[in-house]
Amino acid sequence: MRAAVFCGPRCIEVADRPDPAIASPTDAVVRVVLGCVCGSDLWYYRGESPHAPGPIGHEFIGIVEQVGADVRSIARGNFIVAPFKFSDGTCAHCRAGWTSNCVAGAPFGTDGVDGGQGEAVRVPFADGTLVRIPGTGHSDEMMRSLLTLSDVMATGHHAAVSAGVKRGSVVAVIGDGAVGLCAVIAARRLHAARIIALSRHAARQALARSFGATDIVAERGEAAIQAILQMTDGVGVDAAVECVGTAQSFETAFAIARPGSIVGFVGVPHGVEVPIDTMFGRNIGLRGGAAPVRRYIPELLDDVLEGRIDPGRVFDFDTNLDGVAEGYRAMDERRAIKSLLRIGMV
Amino acid sequence: MRAAVFCGPRCIEVADRPDPAIASPTDAVVRVVLGCVCGSDLWYYRGESPHAPGPIGHEFIGIVEQVGADVRSIARGNFIVAPFKFSDGTCAHCRAGWTSNCVAGAPFGTDGVDGGQGEAVRVPFADGTLVRIPGTGHSDEMMRSLLTLSDVMATGHHAAVSAGVKRGSVVAVIGDGAVGLCAVIAARRLHAARIIALSRHAARQALARSFGATDIVAERGEAAIQAILQMTDGVGVDAAVECVGTAQSFETAFAIARPGSIVGFVGVPHGVEVPIDTMFGRNIGLRGGAAPVRRYIPELLDDVLEGRIDPGRVFDFDTNLDGVAEGYRAMDERRAIKSLLRIGMV
Repeated sequence: MRAAVFCGPRCIEVADRPDPAIASPTDAVVRVVLGCVCGSDLWYYRGESPHAPGPIGHEFIGIVEQVGADVRSIARGNFIVAPFKFSDGTCAHCRAGWTSNCVAGAPFGTDGVDGGQGEAVRVPFADGTLVRIPGTGHSDEMMRSLLTLSDVMATGHHAAVSAGVKRGSVVAVIGDGAVGLCAVIAARRLHAARIIALSRHAARQALARSFGATDIVAERGEAAIQAILQMTDGVGVDAAVECVGTAQSFETAFAIARPGSIVGFVGVPHGVEVPIDTMFGRNIGLRGGAAPVRRYIPELLDDVLEGRIDPGRVFDFDTNLDGVAEGYRAMDERRAIKSLLRIGMV
Repeated sequence: MRAAVFCGPRCIEVADRPDPAIASPTDAVVRVVLGCVCGSDLWYYRGESPHAPGPIGHEFIGIVEQVGADVRSIARGNFIVAPFKFSDGTCAHCRAGWTSNCVAGAPFGTDGVDGGQGEAVRVPFADGTLVRIPGTGHSDEMMRSLLTLSDVMATGHHAAVSAGVKRGSVVAVIGDGAVGLCAVIAARRLHAARIIALSRHAARQALARSFGATDIVAERGEAAIQAILQMTDGVGVDAAVECVGTAQSFETAFAIARPGSIVGFVGVPHGVEVPIDTMFGRNIGLRGGAAPVRRYIPELLDDVLEGRIDPGRVFDFDTNLDGVAEGYRAMDERRAIKSLLRIGMV
């Protein structure tokens, strides 16, 4: 099969790789229909995080081609969505809903497991990992939204849930990447009263507004902090949702969070120092991490299938496997919010 | 009046101070019956935190001597408990329950306000700050428990609440000072199923057990971590309650917290670096700070008055104002868990 591989910073190629096959009776082999590039892929693309050369990508939807003898809930021909990490579904953490912390789990594209940016994937623990998508003949718009359940929509939801967003909350979302935009959707879905999106890009501002943002703050750093404090009568927001992972975005989050609130974070932290004295003095909590996507998919899937949310609109760059390198470049240069890879047919 | 004053590291004296008087119509003047020394007082006592020379102490119960013209809910002759910080009760943070973050608040013994280790205190915002204790003729044991509502019992409760302790939780309490012991009471009161107390002092272990600890871990550092992981089948605890504030206690807390759980912290952090990568990778939250004592007093007061909890047993060293320096020394040398100061008559 053909699959994208990482060959070093700013080097993405398409290579021939062995066709995946069942290696364990709990495996499935999935033929990828849609894959995509993640904002977190840019960390290694830019050389800011280590990554072994080899297969990449951790988001995909596709068709089950084959299942191992012990797979019960997934069958050949099923249309499925995969969370960005596989999980056994049976360990103490999975049973408690923390599937991204499965003792046997790992992200796709690591540990010798295929990535999602390729024609096919061997999926460990198919029962614990994959979620079947009901129905057939989904529109292209619907397919794009289904793909976001692999990561960005579920991760935006995790950010909002971690920050304690609830009915009536005043929320600020820091980060206008795909995850930040999905966090706006999530905050609205959780019935926030006011959603302040921090963005200085016109197209992203427009998308944030159409996803439910009630206010846009185009400033950054101290100016953004002052703007948001002014908008909230000096009180700060009920929930600060951090979707970037940099020192500056964390500083902003802690500065605008009101006493007693929680900063929800899902951006992989890079160079972040947590201001423990501020947390203590102002009773501001911090909660988040790698989203337990597998747990969240069922509830979000219903909302996607019934058209209540349309996170697929974060994809604004379409290409195929041959264009994968350009998909990375477009995101790296911020020409694209998120790059879609059309890999196979339904 | 006579009051304890801080004169520099390891220097506590009793001095003549001006008798407090009503300065604002929302003030009350309280004659102190019982005061005490706090574990957090040891930070400046040991020279590890700055503190201006002058009045000290932030925990007291007493009798209202005088109220300003605008005080409505408190009257002369009332027996009251004071939270360690005063609060106006009307700002956005107070109304949201975060009284320790009141925009006009500060701890007793700072900002020119009297401390609780003296014969009398001018209390700003008497309506927003003080809580009336019903009944008369309380036993000495009851009086001691009522005094803990000023800080340590409410702070232990905040630690447990911040860590998300609930019915059935497996909890570990790090720290066997008065706050840690009160956190054991709080965890039991919140119906935790298992409460692991970290302590290597026989008397404190015994008190922890009588307060509801089901298990004692006498090890420290890596050995404590391994012991607790073994006790929890490698999973970790549902709630790690940090009541010390040192780098080692935070390390222990994060190492034993299971994925998805929250480290609740109330020890004033000293030299702590928050392991943000661990938090992200294992989805462990961090929440806590200066307890909103004023909010918690009413519910805890009921439990004290009805004898369901007896946190006053943390006082194991009795003295009076003349013995205040010895009260500090006894705690500094860990001869005492907490030093009681008998200052006035009911």
